[in-house]
Amino acid sequence: MSEPSFVAGDWGTSHLRLFLCDAHGAPLEAVTGPGVADVGDDFASTFDSLTSRWQEREGPLPAILCGMVGSSIGWMQTAYVACPVQPAQLANACGALRGGRIHIVPGLSCRNRLGAPDLMRGEETQVLGALQIESSLREGRHLLCLPGTHTKWVVLEDGSITQFLTAPTGELFALICDHSVLVEDGAHGVRLAAGAAFEEGLAEFERYPHAQLLHRIFECRSRRLSGELPAESAANYLSGLLIASDVNGALSLLAGSNTRTVHLIGSRGLAHLYAKALAAAKRETRSIDGDAASVAGLTHIQRLLSRQMTAYAN
Amino acid sequence: MSEPSFVAGDWGTSHLRLFLCDAHGAPLEAVTGPGVADVGDDFASTFDSLTSRWQEREGPLPAILCGMVGSSIGWMQTAYVACPVQPAQLANACGALRGGRIHIVPGLSCRNRLGAPDLMRGEETQVLGALQIESSLREGRHLLCLPGTHTKWVVLEDGSITQFLTAPTGELFALICDHSVLVEDGAHGVRLAAGAAFEEGLAEFERYPHAQLLHRIFECRSRRLSGELPAESAANYLSGLLIASDVNGALSLLAGSNTRTVHLIGSRGLAHLYAKALAAAKRETRSIDGDAASVAGLTHIQRLLSRQMTAYAN
Repeated sequence: MSEPSFVAGDWGTSHLRLFLCDAHGAPLEAVTGPGVADVGDDFASTFDSLTSRWQEREGPLPAILCGMVGSSIGWMQTAYVACPVQPAQLANACGALRGGRIHIVPGLSCRNRLGAPDLMRGEETQVLGALQIESSLREGRHLLCLPGTHTKWVVLEDGSITQFLTAPTGELFALICDHSVLVEDGAHGVRLAAGAAFEEGLAEFERYPHAQLLHRIFECRSRRLSGELPAESAANYLSGLLIASDVNGALSLLAGSNTRTVHLIGSRGLAHLYAKALAAAKRETRSIDGDAASVAGLTHIQRLLSRQMTAYAN
Repeated sequence: MSEPSFVAGDWGTSHLRLFLCDAHGAPLEAVTGPGVADVGDDFASTFDSLTSRWQEREGPLPAILCGMVGSSIGWMQTAYVACPVQPAQLANACGALRGGRIHIVPGLSCRNRLGAPDLMRGEETQVLGALQIESSLREGRHLLCLPGTHTKWVVLEDGSITQFLTAPTGELFALICDHSVLVEDGAHGVRLAAGAAFEEGLAEFERYPHAQLLHRIFECRSRRLSGELPAESAANYLSGLLIASDVNGALSLLAGSNTRTVHLIGSRGLAHLYAKALAAAKRETRSIDGDAASVAGLTHIQRLLSRQMTAYAN
């Protein structure tokens, strides 16, 4: 029996990426569109206009979407499934639109290592995708890092997500670059970036890994005024401090004694920065492309859903 | 010999406070005006118009000013004097305007406990004032905290400032309240505030004092979404986390074994919040009013300057 092709979509706060996939989950074509925060209530028309070319050619296609599209400001609010979670549970908690032709993946919740409630939407699908791509992740304990605006650290145990932890590292970086005197004017719109100053920020933080970040970030200003840091390097130095704080703090909270390798899921640029910080903390890293992980996770859920529908039909 | 009366001024980035003082440094009248960031190049005319009533009545008055008015964006750039610093050194490094009728206090620099350059402008004068107000500070080792946009932690040894450490705690709080999804919309312009949620943020941080702040601040959002925190309390919860991170981090870096009491210098509201966080960390506190400390410090420097001028005249 040949499975039908489908549309896989990662619809986050600021970006939409839609993929036309073949029956095996291989992306054939891709389009991008506005994020959840930018479409108002026009989810249906945005989706339809972006996929109309595919639907006209292939006929009505099922679709599976993940990310903030399932939040209170999304197309349809889906649940937060409580950890520990196994892949199949995500398919069971999907929200259905248009008579089940479009499904939206639920988010995850947990009580994190610091005793606080924690939440994710979108990254759970990337973790599931990573489990499909890297079969070695399906057994034993593994630590995954999904860097971004809100970086997620995820603990996998025998293929289940048992806990995770959020750090708004990318958001804090953007806030300070865009609005603070700590980083020179003109850094507006700068995003986390590598370079010599990044490595310096990393190394400086590593010298006192137990210090609080608050006592380090004034350096972005004082090192400029003292002439130790070129004005244009303050943002990169800040990113070194922030990522080192994130990596060192997360490792001391979540890394087991046997967690020598950390799996990074995300864009190449950000993963590269985190890999450097993890190397400084004596960890090996393996990187999985973020888009590939999303599509693999969405494909897995789509398959589980179509099996369920076949079972109901029989 | 009766000393003349003078004008004492604390001219910071966002506020100007001017005091007409008698010969003993007792403030007789006060006016407020625009901060250094808001006057453009109109330092002279701003100062003259705010003090004209006093000058007309009393004749030409000497003035002593501290704060960002001595920075590169101020009226006249004065030095950063390197720690360790004794009070008399500040008088020696004052900048002089209008033939020595107006003096501007220098800032301080040090290599802080984390090996980074650190800077202050304005707080050095408050610390000198505290030394005048609290004679017990003149001997032994003491830890002082000056909470604010950029909180300063100062180590005094036998009356000298030997080192200090800056934490942009207030600035980070304002950035997150004004621009981040972590705190609910509508928190714009909120400033550090006490309350039950503040105490909760404090207590939560204290449970894991070695955790990194980055791994706690997402709670301001997740606890709202989980229903554990009312939307309007997120800012107060955040202030608890931030101040606890500042206090715990600074104590572990700077507190000696015999530093049981921390002296707080600043406004009553902020000092109250820091006192609560210090109490949670098992420290006693003594508070000194920020304006009183500024005036006492400026008076001390003014006295040293007028003695120097008398000495030159003789």
